[in-house]
Amino acid sequence: MAKDKNAPKPKAQTPKGFRDYFGTEVTERAEMLAQIAGVYHRYGFDALESSAVETVEALGKFLPDVDRPNEGVFAWQEDEDGDKGDWLALRYDLTAPLARVYAQHRNDLPLPYRRFAMGPVWRNEKPGPGRFRQFYQCDADTVGAPSVAADAEICAMLADTLEQVGIPRGDYIVRVNNRKVLNGVLEVMGLDEGAQRDAVLRTIDKFDKVGASGVRELLGKGRLDASGAYIDGVGLSDDQAGPVLAFLTSKADGAAQTLDNLRAAVGASAIGLEGVQELETIADLLEAQGYGPDRIVIDPSVVRGLGYYTGPVFEAELTFEILDEKGRKRQFGSVAGGGRYDDLVKRFTGQAVPATGVSIGVDRLLAALREKGRIGGTVEGPVVVTVMDRDRMADYQHMVGELRRAGIRAEVYLGNPKNFGNQMKYADRRGAPIAVIEGGDEKERGVIQIKDLILGAKMAENATLEEWKERPSQFEVPRGQLVEKVREILDGQRQ
Amino acid sequence: MAKDKNAPKPKAQTPKGFRDYFGTEVTERAEMLAQIAGVYHRYGFDALESSAVETVEALGKFLPDVDRPNEGVFAWQEDEDGDKGDWLALRYDLTAPLARVYAQHRNDLPLPYRRFAMGPVWRNEKPGPGRFRQFYQCDADTVGAPSVAADAEICAMLADTLEQVGIPRGDYIVRVNNRKVLNGVLEVMGLDEGAQRDAVLRTIDKFDKVGASGVRELLGKGRLDASGAYIDGVGLSDDQAGPVLAFLTSKADGAAQTLDNLRAAVGASAIGLEGVQELETIADLLEAQGYGPDRIVIDPSVVRGLGYYTGPVFEAELTFEILDEKGRKRQFGSVAGGGRYDDLVKRFTGQAVPATGVSIGVDRLLAALREKGRIGGTVEGPVVVTVMDRDRMADYQHMVGELRRAGIRAEVYLGNPKNFGNQMKYADRRGAPIAVIEGGDEKERGVIQIKDLILGAKMAENATLEEWKERPSQFEVPRGQLVEKVREILDGQRQ
Repeated sequence: MAKDKNAPKPKAQTPKGFRDYFGTEVTERAEMLAQIAGVYHRYGFDALESSAVETVEALGKFLPDVDRPNEGVFAWQEDEDGDKGDWLALRYDLTAPLARVYAQHRNDLPLPYRRFAMGPVWRNEKPGPGRFRQFYQCDADTVGAPSVAADAEICAMLADTLEQVGIPRGDYIVRVNNRKVLNGVLEVMGLDEGAQRDAVLRTIDKFDKVGASGVRELLGKGRLDASGAYIDGVGLSDDQAGPVLAFLTSKADGAAQTLDNLRAAVGASAIGLEGVQELETIADLLEAQGYGPDRIVIDPSVVRGLGYYTGPVFEAELTFEILDEKGRKRQFGSVAGGGRYDDLVKRFTGQAVPATGVSIGVDRLLAALREKGRIGGTVEGPVVVTVMDRDRMADYQHMVGELRRAGIRAEVYLGNPKNFGNQMKYADRRGAPIAVIEGGDEKERGVIQIKDLILGAKMAENATLEEWKERPSQFEVPRGQLVEKVREILDGQRQ
Repeated sequence: MAKDKNAPKPKAQTPKGFRDYFGTEVTERAEMLAQIAGVYHRYGFDALESSAVETVEALGKFLPDVDRPNEGVFAWQEDEDGDKGDWLALRYDLTAPLARVYAQHRNDLPLPYRRFAMGPVWRNEKPGPGRFRQFYQCDADTVGAPSVAADAEICAMLADTLEQVGIPRGDYIVRVNNRKVLNGVLEVMGLDEGAQRDAVLRTIDKFDKVGASGVRELLGKGRLDASGAYIDGVGLSDDQAGPVLAFLTSKADGAAQTLDNLRAAVGASAIGLEGVQELETIADLLEAQGYGPDRIVIDPSVVRGLGYYTGPVFEAELTFEILDEKGRKRQFGSVAGGGRYDDLVKRFTGQAVPATGVSIGVDRLLAALREKGRIGGTVEGPVVVTVMDRDRMADYQHMVGELRRAGIRAEVYLGNPKNFGNQMKYADRRGAPIAVIEGGDEKERGVIQIKDLILGAKMAENATLEEWKERPSQFEVPRGQLVEKVREILDGQRQ
């Protein structure tokens, strides 16, 4: 073919940090989203799809580590006939758009408003291995319900959702904590606000990584981290740091004991006691519906997002073990998180509107199911009808038409049919379970050849001569039995 | 509630030209996309999801009316630690990304490569009524198949798809034309290239609007348009314009006669005759599979995109009549279009790769089904369990849990339960078919009240006193019969 050597050619590449998804990667995700939507719908949540583009003003600065206005987001300025207009940006999550949607449409929406949303979000961050700048989120939120019954409902829904998509009971746990309890702890420590309080909050966020002893050091004089660098501490005495450690390690065998430990940690703090009371109500509501601690548990060691949320905080973890990239066993970890945030709508309207919600990391959940071999095992390739005689394309099209009407995925080879080997290579690359062949000789005799490619591949690997004779992988059948025979072979392959 | 009057509040608004989609708008589209994906999959097409963001370089300048590099797209420049990087942009269609994907991954993809893609695309255009800057496309393309069997297959698939989503046979027509025939016509006119040829192409594009006589005037001296402005013509004599008019009006009662007319129009032009031959092959292939002219027809009056495509061009129109905004009857019109474009991948690799495909306008198709009342009739609101006693939230949660496990959409009222009227207003706004009530008295007696809200609303409108007595819309049943009675009422409502 002719090459144009004059014009410089554009690079055929995704931008850095973006990727393409093919075949089952796309359909398995779509199927999971549909399953999740089914559960959310049954719980009374309504679908919402806002646009990918928002004004920077409406999105606000909710991303962590934001110094510059557009840091972390993909943003650009509107150009209206040469005049500069609004700054627009791609949404970085589905919560900020929900706040905008609720504020904009609040007169037309039910109160409380339960909504779910699923779709891509974008982050303008440095891409890394396995870290992409576009990824899916799948959120459910209840806006306008102050009662922690709304939080309990979302925890129950999260458990139901995980089981619906194929994570069996026992392989996951939803853990619940409460920011108000932490606020109570900080209050009894005399750290209601100020720089030291913020330092304590940042330290607590490291509990996942450094554990109780690490937090104790970081709250005190400081700590030598794994890289050998010395991290300065907050400067509290061991006594002062006590309530924080008590809070983080208060989880006991039963909810009642955990709640007693928390009550001790918050002492006389009113906000702290309110938080403990909320956790107790959540535990009671869930227990009454049969969601016991094997599925949902009060666990004050959940610290992710504790700085962001204003009330109950929840996180779903998968508890089965996988091998990490270095071959070590570890728990799969978090696949969903959320909590109560009562201030998001206030930015727009001036009125505080209570809200609580959860976000499921769909791609992580898909990865988990693939790890467990629950999806991704089978690619449903099409039956490939080969082209033996270019002039009889209508005959071959007729065959695939019959197969498709019978609900069987099928296609005619549409490349250059000259080389039969290429057609079989194509069928192999497509993961075709069956190839259909009708040459001039077969046409004359009113028959077709049907090749079982799965069996054929197995036989080619390790069959004895006897097996070859006993279990043929190619069948000659009358043309009229095309659909029947193909179905029979497909059924056999699925067993 | 406290208002913060110091900080200026952000506007709670979508950017101009964007909108939010709620509830059934979202779920009906998702359902249609799943149905379309099902047909595409059965035809052997594989799913592809590329990212929303591409480099401007990879997207190229395929949008019409593009003078400036970023005109028509939302674009921004990468900022890499202060250094300016690549220009990135939101994709404006799904074809340009396909070309990039194919060029990038061609060594790993089957040849031919049948792929489908569905998702939003973005256009940086002036928004207008009903014209949005983000909308859905749903494409299927075959890359690497030079045979017009690929085009015929896509026409057949388009017909199947329309029937699958609920457009019955007779309510749609797929029309097929061929750019090569037009090229032949231009060749016999001595207009192979140059400014006059481009002017003729632009004029043909107006055939939809101005008809044969209008095109004749515009090819000649010019024409007074509806607004009273005089549009200069191309300057051809009536004789010279003849072949173009013959081409555009060559559709006859049967395909054979149409093809004869086209042969006459292209005279001895080799490219023209090749084009007619391709149309004949397409008609034969489709006829052999039972797609007669009631579904797919050769029609040279299809001019949309004729300038863009390089071979066969197809368009699907819905033929039933609707009332336009001024109350006049008109045909619903185009819902899908496509054709063969053999040069798109060449930009990247220097090698011409044949490709053909179709794009379905999902939002227009949804609008058509809504017009016909085939979707959008019913909103499946949840059963609402009211809260009569705030301290018994666990009881109410238990009820919705039972209903959900039985597959019934249900929710507890999570707003402030003080005012029962608000709860019933909420149920109304939610489109709830049933409300469940269990006050202290009912609890004591082991019963619940179940209100049929649909029947209740009907009765309130026009029932006589006798009917009120005969057909109660509220039932007292034992608590244990909750699911049974709710299901009975729901079944009755669906009849």
